[in-house]
Parts: sequence; C-alpha cells; structure tokens
Amino acid sequence: MKLAQRMLRVKGSEIRSVGKKIASRSNPDLIKFSAGMPDAALFPAKALLEATVPLFSDPERASLQYGLTKGDTDLIGLIAGRMKAVEHMDIDPGNILITTGCQQGISLSAVALLDKGDAVLVESPSYMDGLNACIPYECDFVGIETDDDGMVAEALDRELDANPRAKLIYVIPNFQNPTGKAWPFKRRQDFMAVVKKHPDIMVVEDNPYGELRFRGKFVPSLKSMDTNGQVIYLGSFSKVLSPGLRVAWVIANDELVEKLEILKEGFDLQSNQFAQVQVVNYLRNNDLTAHVELLRAIYKRKCDLMLGAIKEQFPEQAKVIEPDGGMFIWVSLPERINTSEMLDDALEAGVSYIPGVSFYADGKGTDGMRLNFTSTPDERILVGVRRLADVIRTRLH
Amino acid sequence: MKLAQRMLRVKGSEIRSVGKKIASRSNPDLIKFSAGMPDAALFPAKALLEATVPLFSDPERASLQYGLTKGDTDLIGLIAGRMKAVEHMDIDPGNILITTGCQQGISLSAVALLDKGDAVLVESPSYMDGLNACIPYECDFVGIETDDDGMVAEALDRELDANPRAKLIYVIPNFQNPTGKAWPFKRRQDFMAVVKKHPDIMVVEDNPYGELRFRGKFVPSLKSMDTNGQVIYLGSFSKVLSPGLRVAWVIANDELVEKLEILKEGFDLQSNQFAQVQVVNYLRNNDLTAHVELLRAIYKRKCDLMLGAIKEQFPEQAKVIEPDGGMFIWVSLPERINTSEMLDDALEAGVSYIPGVSFYADGKGTDGMRLNFTSTPDERILVGVRRLADVIRTRLH
Repeated sequence: MKLAQRMLRVKGSEIRSVGKKIASRSNPDLIKFSAGMPDAALFPAKALLEATVPLFSDPERASLQYGLTKGDTDLIGLIAGRMKAVEHMDIDPGNILITTGCQQGISLSAVALLDKGDAVLVESPSYMDGLNACIPYECDFVGIETDDDGMVAEALDRELDANPRAKLIYVIPNFQNPTGKAWPFKRRQDFMAVVKKHPDIMVVEDNPYGELRFRGKFVPSLKSMDTNGQVIYLGSFSKVLSPGLRVAWVIANDELVEKLEILKEGFDLQSNQFAQVQVVNYLRNNDLTAHVELLRAIYKRKCDLMLGAIKEQFPEQAKVIEPDGGMFIWVSLPERINTSEMLDDALEAGVSYIPGVSFYADGKGTDGMRLNFTSTPDERILVGVRRLADVIRTRLH
Repeated sequence: MKLAQRMLRVKGSEIRSVGKKIASRSNPDLIKFSAGMPDAALFPAKALLEATVPLFSDPERASLQYGLTKGDTDLIGLIAGRMKAVEHMDIDPGNILITTGCQQGISLSAVALLDKGDAVLVESPSYMDGLNACIPYECDFVGIETDDDGMVAEALDRELDANPRAKLIYVIPNFQNPTGKAWPFKRRQDFMAVVKKHPDIMVVEDNPYGELRFRGKFVPSLKSMDTNGQVIYLGSFSKVLSPGLRVAWVIANDELVEKLEILKEGFDLQSNQFAQVQVVNYLRNNDLTAHVELLRAIYKRKCDLMLGAIKEQFPEQAKVIEPDGGMFIWVSLPERINTSEMLDDALEAGVSYIPGVSFYADGKGTDGMRLNFTSTPDERILVGVRRLADVIRTRLH
C-alpha cells in the first residue's frame, strides 16, 4: 500500500489523543477539565423525546429516508430565522448548507479553497485541531499576533500585504477555543476593514459558542459586516442543544455555497436526515432561546466557581483569562513549566487539561493550559482545581 | 474569491441533478424509477421507535453527547458480529471505522490514497456519482472491460501491468449500481488473484446491496479472500434498515484504518452518535436478518413485476439485465436512442429514470437507463413501465 503524498503531513488530533490517553487510564475519579463537551445533564432530553417520537408516525417516514444534500428545507428556513433573531442577520436560505458539525464546514471550505502551499492565517493560539481538516490540502499555517481583543488587525494587514500565498483566515471571534476571548465590536470593524482591502482573501468565522454569552452585551458577527461575500460563517446546535446529533450549518456566498454542496455530495451524500427533523420538531415546539438562557446561567456559575478557585489556589504567577461566555478558561503558568510534560503528573493526581502547545501553529504555548468548566459538577470543579494547584506547586518547587 | 485549482474538475452528482430536475417539475403523478431509495413503507418504524425512546432516559445521555471518532464501541462490536454471521468473515473490531454512509468510506479512501494523476479503475459502467468523491484529488478514471460476470480479470491485469499510475480499483460485486449484476465466485477468485499480483494496488469493495439477494446463493466477498490487506470493504445499514440514519462502516488494514480515522477527525469529528446508539438498540432487540428476509421477498416481487412488464411492453430490441438482488434493473435500448435526450419526454409522460451516460467514465452508455424497482408501489410499477414503453416506441418511430 502506498499512501498519498499528502498523508506525510497528516497527524491525529492532539485533543482527541489526550482523550485517548485519559481513557486508557480508566480512572473513574479523574476530573476532566480536558473535555470540550457541554454538560450532558442540561440536554433537554424530555423535549427532544417529544420532538422525536412523532417522526416514527409520519406516514412517509421521511426522516428515515434519504434527503437533500443541501439539508432539510424546513431546517434551513428555521436556521435563517434564528440567524435573524439571534445574530440580526438577513440570510437567504439559499446561502445555507447543513453540515455534520462545524468541523465539516472547515473541511469543505479547505477543499474548495486551498491549493498546496497556500497559507491559512490563524489567531495565536487557535483551535489547531479543527484546522487539521486543512492539512491534507498541504497548506501552511501562519499565526497572527493576537492580543486581549483578538487578532490584531494591523498585524493581519502586514501579513496579507507580505504573503502572496495567504488565502484563508480562520477565526473564532466569540469565546474562542482555547482562550475564551471575545473580540469587541471595534476590533471586528478593524478586522473587516483589512479583509475588505484584500478581496481575494476568505474568512472562516467559526461560531459554535456565540450564544453562550453570560456576561456583557451582544456583539455583531463578522458575517454581519461582510459586504463582499468574503466571510464563511459556521454555526451549530452542538453547544446549545446536543452535539451527538451533529447538526450544524455553513453560510457562504452564492458561488461558494454551491461548490460546498457539490463537495458534500462526495464527502457523505448528506448529513443524518433523522437528526435534522428532530431539530426541526424541537425548534417548532420549544423556545431554544429560553433553554440557552438556562445554559448561560449555569455555565456562568460554573465558570465563576472555577475562576474563584483558581485565583485562590494557583500560584500568583499564573495568568488567567476571564471569559464572558463559552466553555473554556485559559491559564498561562510561569514559563519554566511545560504543561505537556506536567500532564502525566496531573493525570496521576486525578485531573486533566489540554496542554497549550496543542493550540499553536509554531510550538509556542508550552506554559499554557485549557480548562473546561461546563462538563464537571460544581463540587468536582473545586476538587479538580485543588488537585491541579498541588501539581503546579510541586513543579514550581 | 479564488477557488482551489482542484475545483476546476469538480462537478455535481448527475443522479442528484436529475433528482433536482424532477423536483422542479413538482408533478405529483410522476413515477420515479430514477430513485435510488429503499421502500420507506418497509422501514421498521415501530421497532426503531422502541429502540429510540430508551435513549432519552439514559442518565448519562451518552447518545446526545460527543462520542468517539472511530464510532460507538458497542456498534463496532455488533458489526463485527454481523460480518461473521452474514459474510462469514472474522473481522477484528479494531479494523472497523464508522462512517456517514458508504459515501464517506469512498471519500476517506480517496484522500488517503490518491495523488494527482493517479488512476482509479472502475467497472464499465459503475457508480460514477459516488466516485465524484475522488475528483477533488485530481485522479483519472479508467473503465475496465466488464462482462456479464463483472470486471474482466484479464483486462484488469493488462491495465495494471501497463499503467504505472493505477492506484485504486473501485467495484460493487453484489447487485451493482447501475447494472444489478453480481459477480460469481469464480470471477471473484480470478479478480483477487490479479490483485494479489500487484501488492501496491488497493481495492474498494462497496457492498451496500449485498444482503438484498433474492435469487441464487450467497457468494463470499472479495474482502474474505483478501490475505494482504488490499481490500477496503464498505458496508451500510442504509439499504437494510434506514438510509436517513446514515450509519455505515469501513473495514481496512491496520495502517489504513488508523489513517482513515485521523482523516475523519478532520472531516466531521465523528458521525451522529444518536443514530449509532439507535442502531445498537435496534440490533440488540430485533432480528435484522428476519427483517432483511422480508425486504428480499418484497423486492423480488417488485423486481419480477417490473421485469415482466418490461418484457411485455418494451420493444424487442431492448436488452434487460435480470438481477438476483439489489435495487436496480439496467436496460440497453437500440443505439440510436439517446436516453439523456429522451429524459425530457419521459418526464413529460410522467416517468423518470437515470440516463446511462451518468455511469460511464468515458461518455459511453448513451443507450442505457437505470430503473429502480424498490421504491414504487406495485401498481405504479406497471403504469410507469407502460409510460416508458410509449416514450421509447415514439422515439423509435
């Protein structure tokens, strides 16, 4: 067997490999701050059950049959409605394609846009594991300077001027994975002004966490400021409803959305039809926004609990980014701590996290760690932070 | 926006575009022999309902949460068991990866194996629409001579000797799409003997229809004769249970299955978890083989009904392949009829089919048509064949 040349570059997800390492320990007492999962206790199981049972009495059994590659027409209409209600964007249903997770939106965009040697510009740090989707297309990643407000527009502009292979910018402006940062309005405006100066550049705006804002005010999306069809917007029900259903969507300009649909035919013909109709029924009979309010309240409590415990117990030198939403807290430890090396100690002590280096294109971030606060019960958050603080203190001494 | 170079070659599925053409007519009286769908009336809705409801009372709500990229562990074990029971193959669960339809198995294999300019060898005709999955990787398709018994082993051997870019062979040995042919045992042996002579060649054995045999005896799979890990086997619940759930699997050698899993992380992180657990529960509490027996009996009746009507009403010059299973009947009309051109007349007359040219790598097949017999009620099969016979007769005169 000879693998394709491109496979020389392809490597597995570091986050998923940490997950496997953890699973191999099978320690039932382990506290998994390494997770990237919503709290399963908050899935609206009863409402989803009520949305699901009627599908089986549909005389046409349409949810069990093949459907359209583009996605269920009713679902697309409901998503257009939510984009109006939640993001204040007028999106034509024709520009929406249903995908299997936001991950598939990244992957389809990569196939459509990236030639060998093209550069993908990313925040530094960013969700590099998701960007593994681009690697088979033999691109290079360039980390762009990122401050407390997100990607620095001037740094982006310089790179775009200097790098003729720049093709795609990947950003998560709301409660970024891994830092939890949300870009303020001004930064989004500045960013889009730079993007518009470079009309061949495309932007992937990945927004799985946008609705999980538990502090501060709504900030408009990059897509809402996109007058030239340069922004590919990725949305998902994974973090607000259920990730197991894998129902997500991409919004792209007329030409691109048609190409993405054709590529999706080749990828998997279509996403799960049953799950799409489950979501349609759920949305018609429930108030998703009210459910999201509940998530926000509980995630805020968990986040504040973790932040308080970290401040109390981590060494003073630890720098913590306090998020206004999302699922993650980012901590930078003193530089002499290598969080990849420390992970084994942490697992030994019964707590896990994702080492920072997983989120950098260039091997930086060895002192960073991503902590998830959504999927651990309150009292376990406190125990886990204590365990982690002990591990860090031992390393420092 | 500059699309990637590879997009110059990418085109939409011809079958799905015929589907769109039909949908745009919105003629409720249209009889769709163009379909590639199972009979929705036969989906075991009650048993699936019973398999689904308990998922919502699982205290861990695992079916609504993220799962493994490789797929649900219980499901993989059950599939290994079915491969033993149905295909008499001993498959290690480690060699199974859950995919979103067989389509994703084709697509992942293409990414892993195809370099620009590599040749994919296919039966002539074949399911070219599925092979659209390979086109973004800039391969060429080579149709290999195919007779009543399937791909001609000697012709394959000659091409493999002569073509240094030959990389992948794609075949559907059971009730092929579009011809409905099943390869006899001897042909499979001869084919595998040729494959083993060329150890760098890989084979995709696409087997969505294998269980739908309603005449003749079981014939072992190519995979069961594969001693060197050269065969990638694709299986699916789409045709025996429900296509809307999109639960399928790929079986590959140790090295490749690991690569396919890594690629799948980038493609969509994982397939729908809920659907996987639905299938697990269904398999545990129901006899799928008994359900398949029912499908076989009904599909045999429909197939024979269509064959009888075709023989009675189509012009004598029409050649019909009589299938022993699957979902399709292939008809070759006199050469002066172009079935692509005739499609508009057929739609006008209230009947659809897929023109033969859609199934050839080289523009042949202009006199062929694929007719589906599984998704149309019995009495409508008779009406549809009559309509089609009238259209053909009008063309001939």
